[in-house]
Amino acid sequence: MILTGPAIGSAVEAEEIRIEPFDPARLQPNSYDFHLHDRIGWYTGDVLDCARENPFEEHTIPVGGMVLQPNRIYLASTSERIGSDFYVPTIRAKSSIGRLGLFVHVTADLIDIGSHGRLTLQLHAVQPVRVYSGMLIGQVTFWTVTGEVVLYDGKYQGSDGPRPSLSHRDFEVGR
Amino acid sequence: MILTGPAIGSAVEAEEIRIEPFDPARLQPNSYDFHLHDRIGWYTGDVLDCARENPFEEHTIPVGGMVLQPNRIYLASTSERIGSDFYVPTIRAKSSIGRLGLFVHVTADLIDIGSHGRLTLQLHAVQPVRVYSGMLIGQVTFWTVTGEVVLYDGKYQGSDGPRPSLSHRDFEVGR
Amino acid sequence: MILTGPAIGSAVEAEEIRIEPFDPARLQPNSYDFHLHDRIGWYTGDVLDCARENPFEEHTIPVGGMVLQPNRIYLASTSERIGSDFYVPTIRAKSSIGRLGLFVHVTADLIDIGSHGRLTLQLHAVQPVRVYSGMLIGQVTFWTVTGEVVLYDGKYQGSDGPRPSLSHRDFEVGR
Repeated sequence: MILTGPAIGSAVEAEEIRIEPFDPARLQPNSYDFHLHDRIGWYTGDVLDCARENPFEEHTIPVGGMVLQPNRIYLASTSERIGSDFYVPTIRAKSSIGRLGLFVHVTADLIDIGSHGRLTLQLHAVQPVRVYSGMLIGQVTFWTVTGEVVLYDGKYQGSDGPRPSLSHRDFEVGR
Repeated sequence: MILTGPAIGSAVEAEEIRIEPFDPARLQPNSYDFHLHDRIGWYTGDVLDCARENPFEEHTIPVGGMVLQPNRIYLASTSERIGSDFYVPTIRAKSSIGRLGLFVHVTADLIDIGSHGRLTLQLHAVQPVRVYSGMLIGQVTFWTVTGEVVLYDGKYQGSDGPRPSLSHRDFEVGR
Repeated sequence: MILTGPAIGSAVEAEEIRIEPFDPARLQPNSYDFHLHDRIGWYTGDVLDCARENPFEEHTIPVGGMVLQPNRIYLASTSERIGSDFYVPTIRAKSSIGRLGLFVHVTADLIDIGSHGRLTLQLHAVQPVRVYSGMLIGQVTFWTVTGEVVLYDGKYQGSDGPRPSLSHRDFEVGR
Protein backbone atom coordinates (compact mmCIF):
# COMPACT_ATOMS: atom_id res chain seq x y z
CA MET A 1 0.00 0.00 0.00
CA ILE A 2 1.09 3.54 -0.73
CA LEU A 3 0.86 6.12 2.06
CA THR A 4 -1.47 9.07 1.51
CA GLY A 5 -0.19 12.58 2.20
CA PRO A 6 -1.83 12.68 5.65
CA ALA A 7 -0.30 9.26 6.47
CA ILE A 8 3.16 10.59 5.51
CA GLY A 9 2.61 13.57 7.81
CA SER A 10 1.61 11.30 10.71
CA ALA A 11 4.61 9.03 10.14
CA VAL A 12 6.97 12.04 10.20
CA GLU A 13 5.43 13.09 13.54
CA ALA A 14 5.80 9.53 14.87
CA GLU A 15 9.45 9.57 13.71
CA GLU A 16 8.84 6.56 11.46
CA ILE A 17 9.77 8.69 8.44
CA ARG A 18 12.57 11.26 8.47
CA ILE A 19 12.26 14.31 6.19
CA GLU A 20 14.47 17.25 7.25
CA PRO A 21 13.50 20.01 6.91
CA PHE A 22 9.81 19.05 6.82
CA ASP A 23 7.10 21.44 5.61
CA PRO A 24 3.49 20.13 5.79
CA ALA A 25 2.61 22.42 2.85
CA ARG A 26 4.72 20.13 0.62
CA LEU A 27 2.52 17.09 1.28
CA GLN A 28 0.76 15.95 -1.88
CA PRO A 29 -2.15 13.46 -2.10
CA ASN A 30 0.29 10.50 -2.22
CA SER A 31 3.78 11.93 -1.92
CA TYR A 32 6.01 14.69 -0.54
CA ASP A 33 7.68 17.28 -2.79
CA PHE A 34 11.43 17.69 -2.46
CA HIS A 35 13.90 20.36 -3.65
CA LEU A 36 17.13 20.30 -5.65
CA HIS A 37 20.25 20.89 -3.54
CA ASP A 38 23.02 23.23 -4.77
CA ARG A 39 25.72 20.62 -5.49
CA ILE A 40 25.96 18.90 -8.90
CA GLY A 41 28.59 16.66 -10.46
CA TRP A 42 29.52 14.83 -13.65
CA TYR A 43 32.11 12.43 -15.02
CA THR A 44 35.02 13.97 -16.92
CA GLY A 45 35.89 10.99 -19.14
CA ASP A 46 34.39 10.36 -22.59
CA VAL A 47 33.62 6.66 -22.08
CA LEU A 48 32.41 5.38 -18.71
CA ASP A 49 33.25 1.88 -17.49
CA CYS A 50 31.16 -0.18 -15.05
CA ALA A 51 34.27 -2.02 -13.84
CA ARG A 52 36.43 1.03 -13.11
CA GLU A 53 36.30 4.15 -10.99
CA ASN A 54 35.28 6.99 -13.30
CA PRO A 55 36.81 10.46 -12.75
CA PHE A 56 34.15 12.83 -11.40
CA GLU A 57 34.03 16.48 -10.48
CA GLU A 58 31.57 18.40 -8.33
CA HIS A 59 30.32 21.97 -8.76
CA THR A 60 27.88 24.40 -7.19
CA ILE A 61 24.83 25.45 -9.18
CA PRO A 62 25.21 29.24 -9.67
CA VAL A 63 22.50 31.64 -8.47
CA GLY A 64 21.28 32.22 -12.03
CA GLY A 65 20.85 28.50 -12.62
CA MET A 66 22.67 26.06 -14.87
CA VAL A 67 21.74 24.65 -18.29
CA LEU A 68 21.88 20.84 -18.33
CA GLN A 69 22.98 19.38 -21.67
CA PRO A 70 21.42 16.23 -23.21
CA ASN A 71 24.65 14.28 -23.80
CA ARG A 72 25.71 14.11 -20.15
CA ILE A 73 24.61 12.37 -16.96
CA TYR A 74 24.52 14.72 -13.95
CA LEU A 75 24.43 13.63 -10.31
CA ALA A 76 22.76 15.92 -7.79
CA SER A 77 20.83 15.45 -4.57
CA THR A 78 17.77 16.49 -2.64
CA SER A 79 17.99 19.45 -0.26
CA GLU A 80 16.13 17.33 2.29
CA ARG A 81 17.58 14.46 4.31
CA ILE A 82 15.14 11.59 3.80
CA GLY A 83 14.86 8.02 5.07
CA SER A 84 12.76 5.47 6.93
CA ASP A 85 13.30 2.30 8.93
CA PHE A 86 9.60 1.39 8.48
CA TYR A 87 8.56 2.23 4.91
CA VAL A 88 10.20 1.92 1.48
CA PRO A 89 10.67 5.26 -0.32
CA THR A 90 10.60 5.59 -4.10
CA ILE A 91 11.33 8.81 -5.98
CA ARG A 92 10.02 10.39 -9.18
CA ALA A 93 9.92 13.72 -10.99
CA LYS A 94 7.20 16.24 -10.34
CA SER A 95 4.84 16.15 -13.31
CA SER A 96 5.95 19.68 -14.29
CA ILE A 97 9.58 18.55 -14.46
CA GLY A 98 8.89 15.41 -16.50
CA ARG A 99 6.90 17.59 -18.91
CA LEU A 100 10.13 19.56 -19.55
CA GLY A 101 11.96 16.36 -20.50
CA LEU A 102 14.11 16.22 -17.37
CA PHE A 103 14.65 12.76 -15.88
CA VAL A 104 15.39 12.84 -12.12
CA HIS A 105 16.58 9.21 -11.98
CA VAL A 106 17.86 6.66 -14.46
CA THR A 107 15.64 3.64 -13.58
CA ALA A 108 17.02 3.70 -10.00
CA ASP A 109 13.97 4.93 -8.08
CA LEU A 110 13.99 2.58 -5.08
CA ILE A 111 15.50 3.72 -1.77
CA ASP A 112 16.33 0.86 0.59
CA ILE A 113 14.56 0.75 3.91
CA GLY A 114 17.05 2.00 6.51
CA SER A 115 18.92 4.26 4.06
CA HIS A 116 19.19 7.85 5.32
CA GLY A 117 20.66 11.02 3.82
CA ARG A 118 20.29 13.39 0.92
CA LEU A 119 18.91 11.27 -1.93
CA THR A 120 21.06 11.14 -5.05
CA LEU A 121 19.28 12.32 -8.18
CA GLN A 122 20.43 11.15 -11.60
CA LEU A 123 19.58 14.06 -13.89
CA HIS A 124 19.27 13.59 -17.65
CA ALA A 125 17.86 16.26 -19.96
CA VAL A 126 16.23 15.30 -23.28
CA GLN A 127 16.62 18.93 -24.45
CA PRO A 128 18.85 21.59 -22.86
CA VAL A 129 17.05 22.86 -19.75
CA ARG A 130 17.95 25.45 -17.11
CA VAL A 131 17.63 24.28 -13.50
CA TYR A 132 17.99 26.22 -10.24
CA SER A 133 19.28 25.35 -6.79
CA GLY A 134 16.38 25.09 -4.35
CA MET A 135 13.71 24.51 -7.01
CA LEU A 136 10.96 21.93 -6.54
CA ILE A 137 12.05 18.96 -8.64
CA GLY A 138 10.64 15.66 -7.43
CA GLN A 139 8.46 13.65 -5.09
CA VAL A 140 9.06 10.84 -2.66
CA THR A 141 6.39 8.21 -2.01
CA PHE A 142 6.36 5.64 0.78
CA TRP A 143 5.21 2.02 0.63
CA THR A 144 4.28 -0.45 3.36
CA VAL A 145 6.28 -3.68 3.59
CA THR A 146 5.58 -7.31 4.38
CA GLY A 147 8.20 -9.56 5.98
CA GLU A 148 11.07 -9.20 8.41
CA VAL A 149 12.86 -5.86 8.04
CA VAL A 150 16.63 -5.79 7.47
CA LEU A 151 17.98 -2.25 7.37
CA TYR A 152 20.26 -0.97 4.59
CA ASP A 153 23.95 -1.00 5.44
CA GLY A 154 25.43 -0.40 2.01
CA LYS A 155 28.03 1.64 0.24
CA TYR A 156 26.02 4.86 -0.13
CA GLN A 157 24.76 5.20 3.48
CA GLY A 158 24.59 8.73 4.94
CA SER A 159 25.10 10.61 1.66
CA ASP A 160 25.39 14.35 2.03
CA GLY A 161 25.68 15.26 -1.65
CA PRO A 162 25.99 13.75 -5.13
CA ARG A 163 28.07 10.57 -4.97
CA PRO A 164 29.57 9.00 -8.10
CA SER A 165 28.93 5.35 -8.91
CA LEU A 166 30.76 2.71 -6.88
CA SER A 167 29.88 0.03 -9.43
CA HIS A 168 33.55 -1.02 -9.70
CA ARG A 169 33.44 -2.28 -6.12
CA ASP A 170 30.95 -4.94 -7.19
CA PHE A 171 33.65 -6.22 -9.54
CA GLU A 172 36.35 -6.25 -6.86
CA VAL A 173 34.33 -8.43 -4.48
CA GLY A 174 33.41 -10.82 -7.31
CA ARG A 175 30.20 -10.96 -9.26
CA MET B 1 -1.09 -3.91 -2.99
CA ILE B 2 -1.48 -3.80 -6.73
CA LEU B 3 -4.90 -4.57 -8.22
CA THR B 4 -5.15 -7.61 -10.49
CA GLY B 5 -6.91 -7.24 -13.85
CA PRO B 6 -10.17 -8.71 -12.50
CA ALA B 7 -9.99 -6.31 -9.50
CA ILE B 8 -9.59 -3.36 -11.91
CA GLY B 9 -12.66 -4.57 -13.82
CA SER B 10 -14.71 -4.81 -10.62
CA ALA B 11 -13.61 -1.35 -9.47
CA VAL B 12 -14.65 0.13 -12.83
CA GLU B 13 -18.08 -1.48 -12.42
CA ALA B 14 -18.31 -0.14 -8.84
CA GLU B 15 -17.36 3.33 -10.17
CA GLU B 16 -14.30 3.43 -7.91
CA ILE B 17 -12.07 3.63 -11.01
CA ARG B 18 -12.97 5.68 -14.09
CA ILE B 19 -11.69 4.48 -17.49
CA GLU B 20 -13.65 5.90 -20.46
CA PRO B 21 -14.11 4.24 -22.82
CA PHE B 22 -13.60 0.93 -21.03
CA ASP B 23 -13.06 -2.37 -22.88
CA PRO B 24 -12.71 -5.51 -20.68
CA ALA B 25 -10.54 -7.06 -23.43
CA ARG B 26 -7.82 -4.54 -22.52
CA LEU B 27 -7.47 -5.84 -18.97
CA GLN B 28 -4.04 -7.37 -18.40
CA PRO B 29 -2.99 -9.55 -15.42
CA ASN B 30 -2.09 -6.44 -13.36
CA SER B 31 -2.93 -3.42 -15.50
CA TYR B 32 -5.13 -1.93 -18.19
CA ASP B 33 -3.82 -1.07 -21.68
CA PHE B 34 -4.40 2.47 -22.93
CA HIS B 35 -4.16 4.10 -26.38
CA LEU B 36 -2.34 7.14 -27.76
CA HIS B 37 -4.65 10.09 -28.49
CA ASP B 38 -4.28 12.10 -31.72
CA ARG B 39 -2.90 15.34 -30.24
CA ILE B 40 0.84 15.88 -29.72
CA GLY B 41 2.89 18.94 -28.81
CA TRP B 42 6.45 20.18 -28.31
CA TYR B 43 8.36 23.22 -27.20
CA THR B 44 9.61 25.55 -29.92
CA GLY B 45 12.59 27.08 -28.08
CA ASP B 46 16.11 25.64 -28.11
CA VAL B 47 16.77 25.88 -24.37
CA LEU B 48 13.98 25.18 -21.88
CA ASP B 49 13.83 26.96 -18.52
CA CYS B 50 12.18 25.57 -15.36
CA ALA B 51 11.46 29.12 -14.12
CA ARG B 52 9.78 30.43 -17.27
CA GLU B 53 6.83 29.60 -19.48
CA ASN B 54 8.23 27.77 -22.51
CA PRO B 55 6.63 28.38 -25.94
CA PHE B 56 4.74 25.26 -27.02
CA GLU B 57 2.78 24.23 -30.07
CA GLU B 58 0.25 21.46 -30.57
CA HIS B 59 -0.37 19.31 -33.64
CA THR B 60 -2.50 16.38 -34.79
CA ILE B 61 -0.80 13.08 -35.54
CA PRO B 62 -1.48 12.44 -39.27
CA VAL B 63 -3.23 9.25 -40.42
CA GLY B 64 0.05 7.77 -41.67
CA GLY B 65 1.72 8.30 -38.32
CA MET B 66 4.54 10.60 -37.21
CA VAL B 67 8.24 9.91 -36.70
CA LEU B 68 9.41 11.04 -33.25
CA GLN B 69 12.99 12.33 -33.17
CA PRO B 70 15.44 11.57 -30.33
CA ASN B 71 16.47 15.16 -29.55
CA ARG B 72 13.01 16.39 -28.60
CA ILE B 73 10.51 15.91 -25.76
CA TYR B 74 6.95 15.34 -27.00
CA LEU B 75 3.81 15.71 -24.90
CA ALA B 76 0.80 13.61 -25.82
CA SER B 77 -2.08 12.01 -23.93
CA THR B 78 -4.12 8.87 -23.53
CA SER B 79 -7.27 8.42 -25.61
CA GLU B 80 -8.99 7.29 -22.41
CA ARG B 81 -10.13 9.51 -19.56
CA ILE B 82 -8.70 7.87 -16.44
CA GLY B 83 -8.85 8.58 -12.71
CA SER B 84 -9.79 7.28 -9.27
CA ASP B 85 -10.77 8.71 -5.90
CA PHE B 86 -9.94 5.35 -4.23
CA TYR B 87 -6.74 3.98 -5.80
CA VAL B 88 -3.44 5.50 -6.95
CA PRO B 89 -2.74 5.02 -10.69
CA THR B 90 0.78 4.71 -12.08
CA ILE B 91 1.59 4.51 -15.79
CA ARG B 92 4.21 2.70 -17.84
CA ALA B 93 4.96 1.66 -21.42
CA LYS B 94 3.70 -1.59 -22.83
CA SER B 95 6.64 -3.97 -23.00
CA SER B 96 6.48 -3.87 -26.83
CA ILE B 97 6.86 -0.07 -26.79
CA GLY B 98 9.76 0.00 -24.32
CA ARG B 99 11.48 -2.60 -26.54
CA LEU B 100 11.39 -0.02 -29.36
CA GLY B 101 13.18 2.53 -27.18
CA LEU B 102 10.14 4.78 -26.69
CA PHE B 103 9.75 6.26 -23.20
CA VAL B 104 6.11 7.11 -22.35
CA HIS B 105 6.99 9.20 -19.30
CA VAL B 106 10.07 10.99 -18.01
CA THR B 107 10.21 9.65 -14.40
CA ALA B 108 6.73 11.14 -13.75
CA ASP B 109 4.65 7.96 -13.52
CA LEU B 110 2.47 8.71 -10.48
CA ILE B 111 -1.08 10.02 -10.94
CA ASP B 112 -2.52 11.65 -7.82
CA ILE B 113 -5.59 10.11 -6.29
CA GLY B 114 -8.51 12.32 -7.31
CA SER B 115 -6.92 13.43 -10.59
CA HIS B 116 -9.19 12.82 -13.60
CA GLY B 117 -8.75 13.35 -17.33
CA ARG B 118 -6.68 12.25 -20.27
CA LEU B 119 -3.29 11.35 -18.81
CA THR B 120 -0.36 13.33 -20.18
CA LEU B 121 2.36 11.17 -21.72
CA GLN B 122 5.92 12.43 -21.96
CA LEU B 123 7.27 10.77 -25.09
CA HIS B 124 11.00 10.43 -25.70
CA ALA B 125 12.46 8.27 -28.46
CA VAL B 126 15.97 6.80 -28.16
CA GLN B 127 16.01 6.19 -31.93
CA PRO B 128 13.61 7.72 -34.48
CA VAL B 129 10.33 5.78 -34.27
CA ARG B 130 7.02 6.10 -36.10
CA VAL B 131 3.94 6.25 -33.86
CA TYR B 132 0.25 6.24 -34.78
CA SER B 133 -2.83 7.85 -33.30
CA GLY B 134 -4.98 5.24 -31.57
CA MET B 135 -2.18 2.68 -31.14
CA LEU B 136 -1.75 0.72 -27.91
CA ILE B 137 1.09 2.45 -26.08
CA GLY B 138 0.97 2.01 -22.33
CA GLN B 139 -0.59 0.52 -19.23
CA VAL B 140 -2.10 1.94 -16.07
CA THR B 141 -1.84 0.05 -12.79
CA PHE B 142 -3.74 0.81 -9.58
CA TRP B 143 -2.47 0.63 -6.00
CA THR B 144 -4.31 0.49 -2.68
CA VAL B 145 -3.64 3.25 -0.15
CA THR B 146 -3.31 3.54 3.60
CA GLY B 147 -4.25 6.73 5.47
CA GLU B 148 -6.79 9.51 5.10
CA VAL B 149 -7.49 10.35 1.45
CA VAL B 150 -7.09 13.95 0.25
CA LEU B 151 -8.10 14.34 -3.39
CA TYR B 152 -5.93 16.08 -5.99
CA ASP B 153 -6.86 19.69 -6.67
CA GLY B 154 -3.81 20.82 -8.62
CA LYS B 155 -2.84 22.73 -11.70
CA TYR B 156 -3.36 19.93 -14.24
CA GLN B 157 -6.86 18.78 -13.14
CA GLY B 158 -9.28 17.78 -15.91
CA SER B 159 -6.74 17.66 -18.75
CA ASP B 160 -8.22 16.98 -22.15
CA GLY B 161 -4.99 16.87 -24.15
CA PRO B 162 -1.23 17.41 -23.89
CA ARG B 163 -0.53 20.24 -21.46
CA PRO B 164 2.88 21.96 -21.34
CA SER B 165 4.75 22.26 -18.05
CA LEU B 166 3.53 24.80 -15.49
CA SER B 167 6.80 24.53 -13.55
CA HIS B 168 7.24 28.33 -13.62
CA ARG B 169 4.18 28.71 -11.36
CA ASP B 170 6.11 26.93 -8.60
CA PHE B 171 8.63 29.76 -8.81
CA GLU B 172 5.99 32.50 -8.69
CA VAL B 173 4.45 31.23 -5.44
CA GLY B 174 7.88 30.83 -3.86
CA ARG B 175 9.87 27.69 -3.41
CA MET C 1 2.97 -4.06 0.01
CA ILE C 2 6.52 -4.64 -1.09
CA LEU C 3 8.30 -7.79 0.05
CA THR C 4 11.38 -7.36 2.25
CA GLY C 5 14.53 -9.28 1.38
CA PRO C 6 13.80 -11.99 3.97
CA ALA C 7 10.24 -12.30 2.62
CA ILE C 8 11.63 -12.79 -0.92
CA GLY C 9 13.93 -15.52 0.41
CA SER C 10 11.02 -17.30 2.13
CA ALA C 11 8.87 -17.07 -1.00
CA VAL C 12 11.65 -18.61 -3.09
CA GLU C 13 11.88 -21.49 -0.59
CA ALA C 14 8.08 -21.90 -0.69
CA GLU C 15 8.29 -21.93 -4.53
CA GLU C 16 5.99 -18.91 -4.75
CA ILE C 17 8.79 -16.96 -6.43
CA ARG C 18 11.16 -18.49 -8.99
CA ILE C 19 14.71 -17.09 -9.23
CA GLU C 20 17.18 -19.48 -10.90
CA PRO C 21 19.96 -19.59 -9.96
CA PHE C 22 19.20 -18.18 -6.51
CA ASP C 23 21.93 -16.87 -4.17
CA PRO C 24 20.76 -15.63 -0.74
CA ALA C 25 23.75 -13.25 -0.66
CA ARG C 26 22.05 -11.24 -3.44
CA LEU C 27 19.02 -10.41 -1.27
CA GLN C 28 18.81 -6.67 -0.59
CA PRO C 29 16.58 -4.96 2.02
CA ASN C 30 13.66 -4.82 -0.47
CA SER C 31 14.83 -6.51 -3.65
CA TYR C 32 17.04 -9.14 -5.25
CA ASP C 33 20.07 -8.24 -7.39
CA PHE C 34 20.24 -9.77 -10.87
CA HIS C 35 23.02 -10.10 -13.45
CA LEU C 36 23.37 -9.20 -17.15
CA HIS C 37 23.27 -12.22 -19.47
CA ASP C 38 25.74 -12.51 -22.38
CA ARG C 39 23.31 -11.97 -25.28
CA ILE C 40 22.52 -8.48 -26.59
CA GLY C 41 20.67 -7.24 -29.66
CA TRP C 42 19.70 -4.11 -31.57
CA TYR C 43 17.65 -3.01 -34.53
CA THR C 44 19.50 -2.53 -37.81
CA GLY C 45 17.19 0.04 -39.44
CA ASP C 46 17.52 3.80 -39.05
CA VAL C 47 13.86 4.53 -38.33
CA LEU C 48 11.80 2.13 -36.22
CA ASP C 49 8.07 1.67 -36.81
CA CYS C 50 5.54 0.57 -34.18
CA ALA C 51 3.32 -0.98 -36.88
CA ARG C 52 6.00 -3.08 -38.58
CA GLU C 53 8.45 -5.81 -37.71
CA ASN C 54 11.84 -4.10 -37.28
CA PRO C 55 14.98 -5.98 -38.45
CA PHE C 56 17.01 -7.03 -35.40
CA GLU C 57 20.30 -8.78 -34.86
CA GLU C 58 21.69 -10.52 -31.80
CA HIS C 59 25.29 -10.68 -30.57
CA THR C 60 27.32 -12.04 -27.68
CA ILE C 61 28.96 -9.58 -25.30
CA PRO C 62 32.73 -10.23 -25.65
CA VAL C 63 34.83 -11.15 -22.60
CA GLY C 64 36.35 -7.65 -22.45
CA GLY C 65 32.93 -6.03 -22.38
CA MET C 66 31.10 -3.86 -24.91
CA VAL C 67 30.66 -0.09 -25.09
CA LEU C 68 27.00 0.89 -25.39
CA GLN C 69 26.42 4.02 -27.51
CA PRO C 70 23.84 6.71 -26.60
CA ASN C 71 21.98 6.80 -29.93
CA ARG C 72 20.84 3.18 -29.88
CA ILE C 73 18.37 1.02 -27.95
CA TYR C 74 19.85 -2.33 -26.87
CA LEU C 75 17.86 -5.37 -25.77
CA ALA C 76 19.47 -7.76 -23.33
CA SER C 77 18.27 -10.04 -20.56
CA THR C 78 18.89 -11.18 -17.01
CA SER C 79 21.12 -14.20 -16.39
CA GLU C 80 18.48 -15.42 -13.96
CA ARG C 81 15.15 -16.98 -14.86
CA ILE C 82 12.60 -15.05 -12.81
CA GLY C 83 8.83 -15.20 -12.30
CA SER C 84 5.96 -15.63 -9.87
CA ASP C 85 2.36 -16.81 -9.93
CA PHE C 86 1.74 -15.06 -6.58
CA TYR C 87 3.51 -11.69 -6.60
CA VAL C 88 4.05 -8.94 -9.20
CA PRO C 89 7.72 -8.31 -10.04
CA THR C 90 9.02 -4.89 -11.08
CA ILE C 91 12.59 -4.21 -12.20
CA ARG C 92 14.99 -1.30 -11.82
CA ALA C 93 18.68 -0.46 -12.12
CA LYS C 94 21.04 -0.90 -9.22
CA SER C 95 21.80 2.55 -7.85
CA SER C 96 25.43 2.21 -9.05
CA ILE C 97 24.24 1.59 -12.62
CA GLY C 98 21.77 4.48 -12.69
CA ARG C 99 24.58 6.72 -11.43
CA LEU C 100 26.51 5.84 -14.60
CA GLY C 101 23.61 7.00 -16.77
CA LEU C 102 22.59 3.51 -17.90
CA PHE C 103 18.83 2.88 -18.12
CA VAL C 104 17.91 -0.81 -17.71
CA HIS C 105 14.34 -0.37 -18.96
CA VAL C 106 12.46 2.20 -21.03
CA THR C 107 9.42 2.83 -18.77
CA ALA C 108 8.49 -0.87 -19.03
CA ASP C 109 9.28 -2.05 -15.50
CA LEU C 110 6.25 -4.21 -14.72
CA ILE C 111 6.43 -7.99 -15.14
CA ASP C 112 3.03 -9.67 -15.35
CA ILE C 113 2.13 -12.17 -12.67
CA GLY C 114 2.57 -15.62 -14.24
CA SER C 115 5.30 -14.52 -16.65
CA HIS C 116 8.44 -16.67 -16.39
CA GLY C 117 11.82 -16.54 -18.10
CA ARG C 118 14.88 -14.39 -18.50
CA LEU C 119 13.63 -10.82 -18.12
CA THR C 120 14.23 -8.56 -21.10
CA LEU C 121 16.24 -5.46 -20.28
CA GLN C 122 15.96 -2.35 -22.44
CA LEU C 123 19.39 -0.75 -22.19
CA HIS C 124 19.93 2.91 -23.02
CA ALA C 125 23.15 4.77 -22.24
CA VAL C 126 23.16 8.55 -21.71
CA GLN C 127 26.95 8.57 -22.27
CA PRO C 128 29.02 5.75 -23.81
CA VAL C 129 29.50 3.10 -21.11
CA ARG C 130 31.29 -0.25 -21.08
CA VAL C 131 29.21 -3.17 -19.76
CA TYR C 132 30.22 -6.77 -19.06
CA SER C 133 28.45 -10.09 -19.31
CA GLY C 134 27.67 -11.41 -15.83
CA MET C 135 27.91 -8.03 -14.09
CA LEU C 136 25.40 -6.96 -11.43
CA ILE C 137 23.04 -4.61 -13.24
CA GLY C 138 19.59 -4.44 -11.66
CA GLN C 139 17.13 -5.43 -8.98
CA VAL C 140 13.76 -7.12 -8.95
CA THR C 141 11.17 -6.24 -6.32
CA PHE C 142 7.95 -8.14 -5.59
CA TRP C 143 4.54 -6.70 -4.69
CA THR C 144 1.49 -8.32 -3.10
CA VAL C 145 -1.76 -8.27 -5.07
CA THR C 146 -5.44 -7.86 -4.33
CA GLY C 147 -8.14 -9.51 -6.46
CA GLU C 148 -8.51 -12.70 -8.46
CA VAL C 149 -5.25 -13.75 -10.12
CA VAL C 150 -5.18 -14.36 -13.89
CA LEU C 151 -1.80 -15.58 -15.06
CA TYR C 152 0.08 -14.04 -18.00
CA ASP C 153 -0.31 -15.89 -21.27
CA GLY C 154 1.11 -13.33 -23.67
CA LYS C 155 3.44 -13.01 -26.60
CA TYR C 156 6.71 -12.91 -24.64
CA GLN C 157 6.14 -15.95 -22.36
CA GLY C 158 9.17 -18.14 -21.60
CA SER C 159 11.81 -15.78 -22.99
CA ASP C 160 15.32 -17.16 -22.99
CA GLY C 161 17.13 -14.10 -24.32
CA PRO C 162 16.58 -10.61 -25.71
CA ARG C 163 13.39 -10.55 -27.77
CA PRO C 164 12.63 -7.71 -30.22
CA SER C 165 9.35 -5.84 -29.99
CA LEU C 166 6.21 -7.56 -31.25
CA SER C 167 4.31 -4.26 -31.28
CA HIS C 168 3.23 -4.82 -34.92
CA ARG C 169 1.09 -7.78 -33.80
CA ASP C 170 -1.10 -5.35 -31.85
CA PHE C 171 -1.83 -3.66 -35.19
CA GLU C 172 -2.64 -6.91 -36.96
CA VAL C 173 -5.31 -7.96 -34.46
CA GLY C 174 -6.85 -4.47 -34.50
CA ARG C 175 -6.42 -1.71 -32.02
